[in-house]
Amino acid sequence: MSYGLLAGKKGIIFGALDEQSIAWKVAEKAAAEGAQIVLSNAPVAMRFGKIQELGEKLNAPVIAADATSMDDLKQLLEQSMTHFGGPIDFILHSIGMSLNVRKNKAYTELNHEWMLKTFDISAISFHKLMQTAYHLDAVKDWGSIVALTYIAAQRVFPDYNEMAESKALLESFARSFGYHYGVKKKVRVNTISQSPTWTTAGSGVKGFKTFFDYADTMSPLGNATADECADYCVFMFSDLSRKITMQNLYHDGGYSSMGINPSVFNEE
Amino acid sequence: MSYGLLAGKKGIIFGALDEQSIAWKVAEKAAAEGAQIVLSNAPVAMRFGKIQELGEKLNAPVIAADATSMDDLKQLLEQSMTHFGGPIDFILHSIGMSLNVRKNKAYTELNHEWMLKTFDISAISFHKLMQTAYHLDAVKDWGSIVALTYIAAQRVFPDYNEMAESKALLESFARSFGYHYGVKKKVRVNTISQSPTWTTAGSGVKGFKTFFDYADTMSPLGNATADECADYCVFMFSDLSRKITMQNLYHDGGYSSMGINPSVFNEE
Amino acid sequence: MSYGLLAGKKGIIFGALDEQSIAWKVAEKAAAEGAQIVLSNAPVAMRFGKIQELGEKLNAPVIAADATSMDDLKQLLEQSMTHFGGPIDFILHSIGMSLNVRKNKAYTELNHEWMLKTFDISAISFHKLMQTAYHLDAVKDWGSIVALTYIAAQRVFPDYNEMAESKALLESFARSFGYHYGVKKKVRVNTISQSPTWTTAGSGVKGFKTFFDYADTMSPLGNATADECADYCVFMFSDLSRKITMQNLYHDGGYSSMGINPSVFNEE
Amino acid sequence: MSYGLLAGKKGIIFGALDEQSIAWKVAEKAAAEGAQIVLSNAPVAMRFGKIQELGEKLNAPVIAADATSMDDLKQLLEQSMTHFGGPIDFILHSIGMSLNVRKNKAYTELNHEWMLKTFDISAISFHKLMQTAYHLDAVKDWGSIVALTYIAAQRVFPDYNEMAESKALLESFARSFGYHYGVKKKVRVNTISQSPTWTTAGSGVKGFKTFFDYADTMSPLGNATADECADYCVFMFSDLSRKITMQNLYHDGGYSSMGINPSVFNEE
Repeated sequence: MSYGLLAGKKGIIFGALDEQSIAWKVAEKAAAEGAQIVLSNAPVAMRFGKIQELGEKLNAPVIAADATSMDDLKQLLEQSMTHFGGPIDFILHSIGMSLNVRKNKAYTELNHEWMLKTFDISAISFHKLMQTAYHLDAVKDWGSIVALTYIAAQRVFPDYNEMAESKALLESFARSFGYHYGVKKKVRVNTISQSPTWTTAGSGVKGFKTFFDYADTMSPLGNATADECADYCVFMFSDLSRKITMQNLYHDGGYSSMGINPSVFNEE
Repeated sequence: MSYGLLAGKKGIIFGALDEQSIAWKVAEKAAAEGAQIVLSNAPVAMRFGKIQELGEKLNAPVIAADATSMDDLKQLLEQSMTHFGGPIDFILHSIGMSLNVRKNKAYTELNHEWMLKTFDISAISFHKLMQTAYHLDAVKDWGSIVALTYIAAQRVFPDYNEMAESKALLESFARSFGYHYGVKKKVRVNTISQSPTWTTAGSGVKGFKTFFDYADTMSPLGNATADECADYCVFMFSDLSRKITMQNLYHDGGYSSMGINPSVFNEE
Repeated sequence: MSYGLLAGKKGIIFGALDEQSIAWKVAEKAAAEGAQIVLSNAPVAMRFGKIQELGEKLNAPVIAADATSMDDLKQLLEQSMTHFGGPIDFILHSIGMSLNVRKNKAYTELNHEWMLKTFDISAISFHKLMQTAYHLDAVKDWGSIVALTYIAAQRVFPDYNEMAESKALLESFARSFGYHYGVKKKVRVNTISQSPTWTTAGSGVKGFKTFFDYADTMSPLGNATADECADYCVFMFSDLSRKITMQNLYHDGGYSSMGINPSVFNEE
Repeated sequence: MSYGLLAGKKGIIFGALDEQSIAWKVAEKAAAEGAQIVLSNAPVAMRFGKIQELGEKLNAPVIAADATSMDDLKQLLEQSMTHFGGPIDFILHSIGMSLNVRKNKAYTELNHEWMLKTFDISAISFHKLMQTAYHLDAVKDWGSIVALTYIAAQRVFPDYNEMAESKALLESFARSFGYHYGVKKKVRVNTISQSPTWTTAGSGVKGFKTFFDYADTMSPLGNATADECADYCVFMFSDLSRKITMQNLYHDGGYSSMGINPSVFNEE
């Protein structure tokens, strides 16, 4: 089912690793809704994933970019504008990786060099991206920028480790840059705080299955899927959401508003 | 511009007084997006407003209902189902009135009988509506219910008076009933917290012009309009928002995330 | 252990039913910290409880007052000022009762007349109390008013039923009246959002034991007790908290900031 | 006026530069309330400030420590424990510095190397401190750790620049580590979100006078002072706040709960 919500729009989608990725679904839906897409991911992620396959399917250029590199981001934005013949309507930031999680470091034994790298990849990349776009004037008036986040920025999920801080940082960048981009170019910046999602990235987190199921049971409507997240992103990129900015939008089947769901007790 | 987002859907819109009303815009957009509509308002509001005109334009039945009366609500829902030939996909609650504001009572001199009446009209009506719909099984699986609210539920705007409490109550009903309706029928319930809006109702509040302009200057994207609110409602009624529930969604050009906007100082 | 934190201060404590009551503990601690106290409760609650016993112990007058009656509140405040020989430093509002809960009505089958009564007792009484005090100028400059609330105002705990809405309303009154009382008299108004507590009132709520234990396990420091809540109240009434106002203060061993505590899974 | 609230307790206070510093006031009040203190600050800050003077006045050792250095933190904690003859009861983290602000970089032109350094100094230092204390078992059971923060973590104050992100990060560390320290040792971790305060550090921020006055006018009780913040800290370090953890506590005269204060319009 498609509606033409993004007819004529042009966007950059970061972070499509494979068909489980939220970014993958967003790229597919955005294309189905009429958008032209440029895909990007880190060089290393591109080697392991299937982004080229997606690029072919959507007739979308795939441009490697290390999102922590201002040069790479500049090149990506310039090449995208060349490809599109002008500035961009929307961007999805779906990037996150924790070195300490990967190395199984407990939250009370973190390596702080790795922490800085985690923040750089997972959050500061978002500021770098927006700062670069801002200076290149790469986003159209009333353009829309979305980053994906998680409720660990507000509440403690121990296994999420330093990614909690990464997401708190990411959401703060969305608010702050949303102000600056809003007053200058009417560009909106928001984060979608998504249910735990069965992606290759998400499912690598320790204890993921447990909190996926817990969240699913706790949420009156069940967890939101990657496909449904793509629907939300399409709306956020469309002209129907022009005055929504600097918000953190929970997309979670109601999870964030639950205290206790009796189902949690019944089913264990 | 329309997309067919509500093709085949059926909904009830409360609170369209005249063409300035948010509910009026929602009814128009929902119809343009393919929905069939039933309009409702309080008998007294119908006499002063132009809802019949809207009904004719949209080919929508207009059914009077006092939203504080369980009997009226039952009749409205039953007649709507008869008209539609089945249950309903979406409902908009845009109802609010403060007796103490109307009588110019200061917040420190409220008449508590009137306060109860204010809460009954502006907030409890929402619970009554959902309870009635729940028992009649009047809303389809994955249906969507939205009520309009204001940020005075979170922060103090003195002129808003007891409507602050009405909105706090309304938002709590959305969360609580959202749980019950979610687990039973996958129906989602949300509130949209809209910028101050130039409606006949809104502009009657004391000091409205001042805080309209202040909010407009404070918001990086300016205040959200009634038309833009209708866009948001259309999304919330569509299949693209199925997993958003029990949320209070700010639609305000960024106002809610602002501390200080330097423009406020420059322009005064 | 006492510190003399309330030496020379005078306060009114509502809601001490028996020695399990939070209000009972607050009265005891406030007295131990040097305050003079007036106790009040509804006539019916006084018959079932032991408030007279507490009054004797603390040498505190016990004045019956239906907190929904402006006349009773006026009389209580006037008699208290007469007793103290002047205005009051602090007030505790610990009043809550749900007719629908008492009658075992499900949230989807509420009697709305009873709901109005519930709100009147549990929340509007707080506005009535402050409005009466405001007009009698019964509270000293820099006085402190506290009401007890629960996190069900923010998140859904199904068994809490319409008390969720009562608490949302109560917290909104604290913010709104806190503004008015603040600008006029520097009086601060706050709510303490307390862990589930083993009181005669609390333990009457359906499923209370379950969510008491769940909250206790979820909270890194365990549930806050009535005694500990009294410590918090003492601070809020003291001169050490003069610039804290219009806040909802979680006192819950960390519960409100938890997403998942692995202990919840291990222990069930 | 003192109460003996911290009799017998031992604490470390970071960040006392001169008599305007909040940390300076906290050290004085904590000592007046019966605590023994160790003072610490960065070597460079010690050269410019007057911390030695405070140390002499309070008979408190002054131990230089770069809070970004795990070695310095370890040494500080070990020397403090030696000095005290055992573990510590409380710690105040009042550390913040933005390189980009210092160099007048606009938020849309940040140097990201400096940003990392800013985060390291202003926020990651808090994690490093707690991690070090955790491993040395340097904090007693039921100890209390407080960091100072600002509402820019939640709402946009453009001149606050990347310190907004620093504070968002800091508050997230408080929640996350609060969980781990809570379950292991019953140690509580909180942040106090203080009004803009006339300190040497604060007043260096561009536009500070404007937002100090704006906040003061907006707040029903006026801005909270450094002295009053010290009162709050004393409470947080005392035995009266044992079950408060993982909270961000606004201490701001009501600012955070205000939408519009009509005084803002009248006075400009």
